[in-house]
Amino acid sequence: MAKQNMIKLLYEMMKNSKRSDRGIAKIIGVSQPTITRMRQRLEKTGYIRDYTVIPNLKKLGYEIVAFTFMDTANSNKKDENMKEWIESNPKIVLTASGDGLDGKNSIMASIHTDFTDYSDFMSEFRSKWSGKIRDIDSFLMPLRGSILKHFSFKYLQPIE
Amino acid sequence: MAKQNMIKLLYEMMKNSKRSDRGIAKIIGVSQPTITRMRQRLEKTGYIRDYTVIPNLKKLGYEIVAFTFMDTANSNKKDENMKEWIESNPKIVLTASGDGLDGKNSIMASIHTDFTDYSDFMSEFRSKWSGKIRDIDSFLMPLRGSILKHFSFKYLQPIE
Amino acid sequence: MAKQNMIKLLYEMMKNSKRSDRGIAKIIGVSQPTITRMRQRLEKTGYIRDYTVIPNLKKLGYEIVAFTFMDTANSNKKDENMKEWIESNPKIVLTASGDGLDGKNSIMASIHTDFTDYSDFMSEFRSKWSGKIRDIDSFLMPLRGSILKHFSFKYLQPIE
Amino acid sequence: MAKQNMIKLLYEMMKNSKRSDRGIAKIIGVSQPTITRMRQRLEKTGYIRDYTVIPNLKKLGYEIVAFTFMDTANSNKKDENMKEWIESNPKIVLTASGDGLDGKNSIMASIHTDFTDYSDFMSEFRSKWSGKIRDIDSFLMPLRGSILKHFSFKYLQPIE
Amino acid sequence: MAKQNMIKLLYEMMKNSKRSDRGIAKIIGVSQPTITRMRQRLEKTGYIRDYTVIPNLKKLGYEIVAFTFMDTANSNKKDENMKEWIESNPKIVLTASGDGLDGKNSIMASIHTDFTDYSDFMSEFRSKWSGKIRDIDSFLMPLRGSILKHFSFKYLQPIE
Amino acid sequence: MAKQNMIKLLYEMMKNSKRSDRGIAKIIGVSQPTITRMRQRLEKTGYIRDYTVIPNLKKLGYEIVAFTFMDTANSNKKDENMKEWIESNPKIVLTASGDGLDGKNSIMASIHTDFTDYSDFMSEFRSKWSGKIRDIDSFLMPLRGSILKHFSFKYLQPIE
Amino acid sequence: MAKQNMIKLLYEMMKNSKRSDRGIAKIIGVSQPTITRMRQRLEKTGYIRDYTVIPNLKKLGYEIVAFTFMDTANSNKKDENMKEWIESNPKIVLTASGDGLDGKNSIMASIHTDFTDYSDFMSEFRSKWSGKIRDIDSFLMPLRGSILKHFSFKYLQPIE
Amino acid sequence: MAKQNMIKLLYEMMKNSKRSDRGIAKIIGVSQPTITRMRQRLEKTGYIRDYTVIPNLKKLGYEIVAFTFMDTANSNKKDENMKEWIESNPKIVLTASGDGLDGKNSIMASIHTDFTDYSDFMSEFRSKWSGKIRDIDSFLMPLRGSILKHFSFKYLQPIE
Repeated sequence: MAKQNMIKLLYEMMKNSKRSDRGIAKIIGVSQPTITRMRQRLEKTGYIRDYTVIPNLKKLGYEIVAFTFMDTANSNKKDENMKEWIESNPKIVLTASGDGLDGKNSIMASIHTDFTDYSDFMSEFRSKWSGKIRDIDSFLMPLRGSILKHFSFKYLQPIE
Repeated sequence: MAKQNMIKLLYEMMKNSKRSDRGIAKIIGVSQPTITRMRQRLEKTGYIRDYTVIPNLKKLGYEIVAFTFMDTANSNKKDENMKEWIESNPKIVLTASGDGLDGKNSIMASIHTDFTDYSDFMSEFRSKWSGKIRDIDSFLMPLRGSILKHFSFKYLQPIE
Repeated sequence: MAKQNMIKLLYEMMKNSKRSDRGIAKIIGVSQPTITRMRQRLEKTGYIRDYTVIPNLKKLGYEIVAFTFMDTANSNKKDENMKEWIESNPKIVLTASGDGLDGKNSIMASIHTDFTDYSDFMSEFRSKWSGKIRDIDSFLMPLRGSILKHFSFKYLQPIE
Repeated sequence: MAKQNMIKLLYEMMKNSKRSDRGIAKIIGVSQPTITRMRQRLEKTGYIRDYTVIPNLKKLGYEIVAFTFMDTANSNKKDENMKEWIESNPKIVLTASGDGLDGKNSIMASIHTDFTDYSDFMSEFRSKWSGKIRDIDSFLMPLRGSILKHFSFKYLQPIE
Repeated sequence: MAKQNMIKLLYEMMKNSKRSDRGIAKIIGVSQPTITRMRQRLEKTGYIRDYTVIPNLKKLGYEIVAFTFMDTANSNKKDENMKEWIESNPKIVLTASGDGLDGKNSIMASIHTDFTDYSDFMSEFRSKWSGKIRDIDSFLMPLRGSILKHFSFKYLQPIE
Repeated sequence: MAKQNMIKLLYEMMKNSKRSDRGIAKIIGVSQPTITRMRQRLEKTGYIRDYTVIPNLKKLGYEIVAFTFMDTANSNKKDENMKEWIESNPKIVLTASGDGLDGKNSIMASIHTDFTDYSDFMSEFRSKWSGKIRDIDSFLMPLRGSILKHFSFKYLQPIE
Repeated sequence: MAKQNMIKLLYEMMKNSKRSDRGIAKIIGVSQPTITRMRQRLEKTGYIRDYTVIPNLKKLGYEIVAFTFMDTANSNKKDENMKEWIESNPKIVLTASGDGLDGKNSIMASIHTDFTDYSDFMSEFRSKWSGKIRDIDSFLMPLRGSILKHFSFKYLQPIE
Repeated sequence: MAKQNMIKLLYEMMKNSKRSDRGIAKIIGVSQPTITRMRQRLEKTGYIRDYTVIPNLKKLGYEIVAFTFMDTANSNKKDENMKEWIESNPKIVLTASGDGLDGKNSIMASIHTDFTDYSDFMSEFRSKWSGKIRDIDSFLMPLRGSILKHFSFKYLQPIE
């Protein structure tokens, strides 16, 4: 029951993390101190990664979100340099392994002010890690284009 | 200058939206009431879409994030039904138009508890909108796999 | 414990279903009547689909195993006819839905006496179900070719 | 005639290998000792590879069957290591050479408990044999999905 | 023996059909009348399709041999018109069904005086049979380019 | 005029090279000695490569014609060995450079007794020249399949 | 000779069309009136399509040149509307038929102020002519990127 | 205002660079000396790259424009040689970096007298730079084919 409420609380915070504990307490139907305790628990146990805001990227001056997929051959040598470069590059907001799209095994999402910025980014990326990448292809999502459903975790519902 | 500080504030909130206005005031070097006013401004002018938390999806019981790319022929008739279905489907966290990956023009990101859940979702999606989709392909990112850089807006830095 | 032994028994039968219950009893370390009871249980609860032999297809005169992948548009109308045809065609040994290989959503495995037999089979298949299939491609495995690991369930080991 | 009956017997055993020799004798229309002799012959001459059961993989806890296709460059050096690894890996149930799907020349079928298990398997496979594999792609068949025709040799009929 | 010699004769004629029966008789080691009889037999039983010469296409003014592969959906209606058109088109020297190259099921070889001729041919072909062709792609072989092995049946050797 | 008649003669011989000079003389409308002289001219000047017969490959025991397309990287070193191997391999009836089918630059046509023969041929080819070939794919034409227009030069008509 | 000089003149004008007839006369080695006459001849006979300047597109505010390739099914009905739309659209600088890139048969070059402009253009194009286009894909060339050789006819040299 | 008129002038010159300053002055509505001054300004500031004529390539004897797309691995060593070769090759009229068409990152446009010329050009290009190019594919536009909109900058209109 407690676990179930904690999960409920987390989904409420994904929807809106700005409400006071008291406000959420009413929705979930427990006391405010319980909410406070549960929230601290969610933070400590790592259920919550970050408190953040989802910005309007377009208003901030960004034009493109790029989803880049790669087939990276695993020659473990220079791995560390590549990892560091990716971690410290402020344009990259996600990098993970995976599977699909004609044998790709990595995804990288990056955010760019315009196509030239994307293009320069890709040239640098390719020329730096060319030896480790066998196949690479991107999908460009324009931020001023038609976005039917803006990215958010608020749509998710607790797993039954 | 005011504008610049407001942007600075927004980036700080992308990094961490839980800090008190007073705490952020120190970082940016303005008074707390200024921060409060600027934050309200960011909310009203739509710079901030949502206050949210980024959850640990793995801990919540999700196994897969699917990035699905489609070539949707624009036969505008049944568009509205498809849009509604996408908007109301809780597994879909992003849908937008774009360009790339061998002629695809749409991206859809969805989150799944396991491969069977993804597979059932795709079967339903395909059988429902088969007439509108000419080409479709997905990349599956396992949440328990190796994730070099977890998704976050905190990496972004103000555009110079 | 009982469950664990039953699973152990099933894996033993996947390896070799010809041994007597007594022979297997020794391996698992329970009495023969227990084995008999467990085996009947496995049959009743559907853990065992079929008792079968894996034939040497080459010796039987087969030359090719074909793995065919399709993107089937779901126009539910003539589905039943197609299902019946597949079910009753003796060359098809597996048909299932799935995901991958550039947007395919079905797999079909079939066994052929030679390339002409495969080719005739494909022509009939395509001409019969052409309206339902948007994309189709095959991989042909020669039975007289180099087979590093012959198909068998005997390699599988109990999940820990 | 004898040969023909032996083949008939083999097809009967592919359908059901559990029946007593006496039961099968009636179906084929020869004496039981003849069946017993023919069966021993089939075993000795290698017409029968294995007596086995086809398990309900879903009930055993498996979620995915992966069909992986590769273009393996033949640099014969480290071949032996790769062969050994494949032979001893319990998740792999078939490996053979062949032709198709945009220039692939090998097929590998493997069985997995979930997508993460598949994904880890592929990461290990790729990083281990990256130098030998030029192109790789998979089709995933969900065991809890819609399976029109479960795998079996029982559908096959004697070649006329 | 007679059959074997007849086959031998056919292979000799594939190499060079201009030699006199007497000349060939010496090579095969039978009498001239036997050769004459065997040759007539090869013609009557359809082992020989045509007596022909292989021309130097380049000298005749041809520049390109095009190999075109198609995925033809089998909507049997207008088949006859298409067949007639192909049969009577003098540029087409081969049309057959088959399998490969990403799901193609037909091959067509045609010979052209230059790229414009090929391009006009393709435009007419596509616009005429567009409804029957789902996918089409060509390989162009330049007759004035590097041809390592000119087309001929003379390389073939009797099957052992 | 003489040139024109010579070309006419060549086309007649492509249609049927077995007719006597006298028979052809009537068709073209010149004297028999003129035909004889023109034919010798066509041979000397290389307009005629070979006198041959087009065999019924199916009757000779062949099942498959394979059209293989490659992207061969030009590392000129071992070129000579590869050329020799191709020239002396009796199954290969054509090898040339060209352009198309997703960046391929070579075509090779080969004739096989069955799929196993093709498959063995490809394995040997790939393992021998693997370092020189970056991409390879084939189309298989079954000789016992539906052949709308059998290969022949007889369809060609003089260029206007 | 006159013809040769006229061609020479045209190539000189492709290099630089601003020079006076007198200036060019010296280079080619004929009198100025001859140049004037030849130039008029080139204009009248259609050797010269346009006198133009090649602008610095980047300085004019353009960011992207898009090369779009399509497989257009030839359903001749609405052709005229599509042609008119293409002809009157100021962003399109070239449209022609052709062959290549996995079965495409048309090329369209267009120039855009930014990625959003390109993306909107493509959405309109696709939704307007979706029924006529079976396959579409683009290559984007950034004008502020690395351009090794800027487009010009000045590189061309007279055909020998 | 002056800037706006200068841009207007440039677009007029893209349409037709042959008109006298006086003629253009009337169209734009300023004095002729202003036009002269503005034009000189456009030249000095680099808004105008070249004064040129667009030739009728077909009449000049060209048959094909080739658009070649490559994935060039950035091994910076021999870069300079390749650049020089491209710059000095008179058949190449454009070379630039970019993004699209299944991971290509360079475009090259070249003009050819016939397919053999194109084919020889590609053979030389591939054999020379084979080590630097991972993937390459072309689209061929026939100059005697159907060209809906001939290449020109005259269609462009000033950006609002």
